[in-house]
Amino acid sequence: METIIDLIEDGKLIKAREKIITMDAVDIELLLDEIPREKMLRVFRMLPKTLAADTFAYMKSDQQQYIIESITDNEINNIMDEMFMDDTVDFLEEMPANVVKRVLKTTDAKTRHTINQLLRYPDGSAGSIMTTEYVDLKKEMTAREALRHIRITGVDSETINTCYVIDKERKLEGAISIRKIILSAPETLVSDMMTTEVKYLYTYDDQETSAFRFKKYDLLSMPVVDGENRLVGIITIDDIVDVIEQEATEDIEIMAAITPTDKPYTETGALGTFQKRIPWLLLLMISATFTGGILSSYETSLAIYPALVAFIPMFMDTGGNAGGQASVAVIRSLALNEVEFKDIFKIVWKELRVALLCGLIMAVVCFLKAMVIDARFTDGVNFVTALIVSITIFLTIVIAKLVGCVMPLLAKRVGFDPAVMASPFITTIVDALSLIIYFQIVRLFLPM
Amino acid sequence: METIIDLIEDGKLIKAREKIITMDAVDIELLLDEIPREKMLRVFRMLPKTLAADTFAYMKSDQQQYIIESITDNEINNIMDEMFMDDTVDFLEEMPANVVKRVLKTTDAKTRHTINQLLRYPDGSAGSIMTTEYVDLKKEMTAREALRHIRITGVDSETINTCYVIDKERKLEGAISIRKIILSAPETLVSDMMTTEVKYLYTYDDQETSAFRFKKYDLLSMPVVDGENRLVGIITIDDIVDVIEQEATEDIEIMAAITPTDKPYTETGALGTFQKRIPWLLLLMISATFTGGILSSYETSLAIYPALVAFIPMFMDTGGNAGGQASVAVIRSLALNEVEFKDIFKIVWKELRVALLCGLIMAVVCFLKAMVIDARFTDGVNFVTALIVSITIFLTIVIAKLVGCVMPLLAKRVGFDPAVMASPFITTIVDALSLIIYFQIVRLFLPM
Repeated sequence: METIIDLIEDGKLIKAREKIITMDAVDIELLLDEIPREKMLRVFRMLPKTLAADTFAYMKSDQQQYIIESITDNEINNIMDEMFMDDTVDFLEEMPANVVKRVLKTTDAKTRHTINQLLRYPDGSAGSIMTTEYVDLKKEMTAREALRHIRITGVDSETINTCYVIDKERKLEGAISIRKIILSAPETLVSDMMTTEVKYLYTYDDQETSAFRFKKYDLLSMPVVDGENRLVGIITIDDIVDVIEQEATEDIEIMAAITPTDKPYTETGALGTFQKRIPWLLLLMISATFTGGILSSYETSLAIYPALVAFIPMFMDTGGNAGGQASVAVIRSLALNEVEFKDIFKIVWKELRVALLCGLIMAVVCFLKAMVIDARFTDGVNFVTALIVSITIFLTIVIAKLVGCVMPLLAKRVGFDPAVMASPFITTIVDALSLIIYFQIVRLFLPM
Repeated sequence: METIIDLIEDGKLIKAREKIITMDAVDIELLLDEIPREKMLRVFRMLPKTLAADTFAYMKSDQQQYIIESITDNEINNIMDEMFMDDTVDFLEEMPANVVKRVLKTTDAKTRHTINQLLRYPDGSAGSIMTTEYVDLKKEMTAREALRHIRITGVDSETINTCYVIDKERKLEGAISIRKIILSAPETLVSDMMTTEVKYLYTYDDQETSAFRFKKYDLLSMPVVDGENRLVGIITIDDIVDVIEQEATEDIEIMAAITPTDKPYTETGALGTFQKRIPWLLLLMISATFTGGILSSYETSLAIYPALVAFIPMFMDTGGNAGGQASVAVIRSLALNEVEFKDIFKIVWKELRVALLCGLIMAVVCFLKAMVIDARFTDGVNFVTALIVSITIFLTIVIAKLVGCVMPLLAKRVGFDPAVMASPFITTIVDALSLIIYFQIVRLFLPM
């Protein structure tokens, strides 16, 4: 890679080109990203048509825009011709209106119509990630005819692994794998080879739902139909892999009190990152104020027994951690469709047993620690304090785990994203509860 | 689905079977999971060979074991014959020794040898997720001969979309898509159609690395070679989808202070869940003790200005949240290979700017809140207190964000899992720091 960059910098473009055209489009994109824009453009224009289009599809938006603004209409048309429709639409979605207009102007009327239609599907729908290049067969074809048809139309298709069978009105009738066609006798009819039990998606289906069905049935591609069951596109597994990863990132961000975007961390500026984080910090700060209020309402207890204050961070942290463990486990299980709201009693029963075990161990350790270490170094820590602390930690853990597992399920039930109910929120709730428990038990055991 | 269960419960098995054999193996597994074991077994034994094997591959371990222990050696052999090697190995890995022995006994010597070899690859390696059913071609074949070869050997292969070209010593020479073979003239030589720039994996490669290469190059399958570059298996994208999801779940669990396992939440009992959570609770409790120590060392300040205590939960929570946001963003970026350790200065510079913005807004809001609300309801809150609180929150956020973004990078650098450095750990560190800042500023502004 470095030798190629050296060649380019030395102006030995022909030599560089020789090496570049043996590379993968992904790697060419990485290479072009490393060199100055003007040189990048010169190298890009030297690429063969197909490789240029593939490389273009992998580029970041600002690079794409720079290229489009620097090349001729004819060159644009060549790229658009070679690119798959879903990549074209992804690219155009990020471009300013004048660039979109110029690109559409270079394409023929039919392509323009398709692009315009695809651009209208809402973000995150099956329609927005599908492509329109696929192989369609007719029931009456034989295996031999089907293969001939694939040879003619297959070059432009994103996948020929699965072909779809449609009727005269383009309604989906069946699916057939290329494997089945090849392995069958040449005279076998498509209608005899195809399966009519096709899993399909609607254009308006959510991309998360789409990903779930791909995973459930281990599919490599899936047809997408409109409201009248007419085949309008296909989704391939490589786009689903992106969806799965994007959804996981979104969940992780929400769990960490960040508003999710579909841009990677490295491509979001400081201002954008700030905007994604500040609302949650403000919201959580306000709820932490209530916890502060609770704490100051027990001011007198703290004034009489100042040693009690040392245990507060432990209750708050342990409560947050114990609750966070339960909530995150449930949130992830919900995201993977392993559990649903109706499992609430099973989940609560399990978390209760886990909480009793965790609480017991933590209470014993806290008791011993208070007696052996704290009592030696801190005034006012004695057997009664140790007892108070261990009872509090036990109850805090039990309540934290129960709150932690129930909140995501309730959120799901009322239509909120369960991921919101991760550690930050649970911590705020449990903090307040643990302090109330603490001081109630203090009042029970110590004279006020 | 319910009508089928009704049919089974009424003993109308022939009728039930008619409906079941049109279903997908995944759905049959879900159905069988709903009915009593004895009936489940009877229905399972009525399934056609291929469907039985497919369904078996989707089953949970306890169901698989029950079936193996209840059927004849001949039936076992039928299932093993039909199952793909990677599914067979996944199944055997979960079985007790006596079941493994019985299963291996029913297979022929060659299969037994392959299974034994596959069972030896370490968990999480490319070798452990690959399958041994693939199509291999020779350079000298023509497109026509290749197709004939695929017709003969392809039935047993997990995918025929990509075929691999090997020499006499089974060394990997190239790859060729079925699409290319079909679209080429029948007399074209494999050596002229194949690409020699094949992306491949070693058996000992990590499954996470494997998934990353699949994603980078948008691949559907990848060949796996041994130390001497001999082709030993292939990995298909459906297994990679599982790996991607499993890795995301693992990261999420570690970030929530849970020891990850590869078993889903629903399949882990209370005791198992307890064991995954208690070590972290204990560890984090001990570090929270230090924070408690810091708090009690400022006992005298608190005794003189009891109003100060009300702000402690806010500092602790906000510090944890702000630090958690930064650390989780960096952890996810590291997991997606978007950033690496050498980007540390870029990341710190960005997080610093984000922190200054967040800190500023939070400081202003805190100041106003303290003056307008807290000062009215709490004794001892005044302009100076408001100033102390807003300076503390500002510094807490800046330090939290910096600690939050640096810790995962350092962890990665020294070979630890960066995910450990998520909210729970960051919270513990930042809690202590925010309290020290708080009381130092208190001493600066208020007479002691």
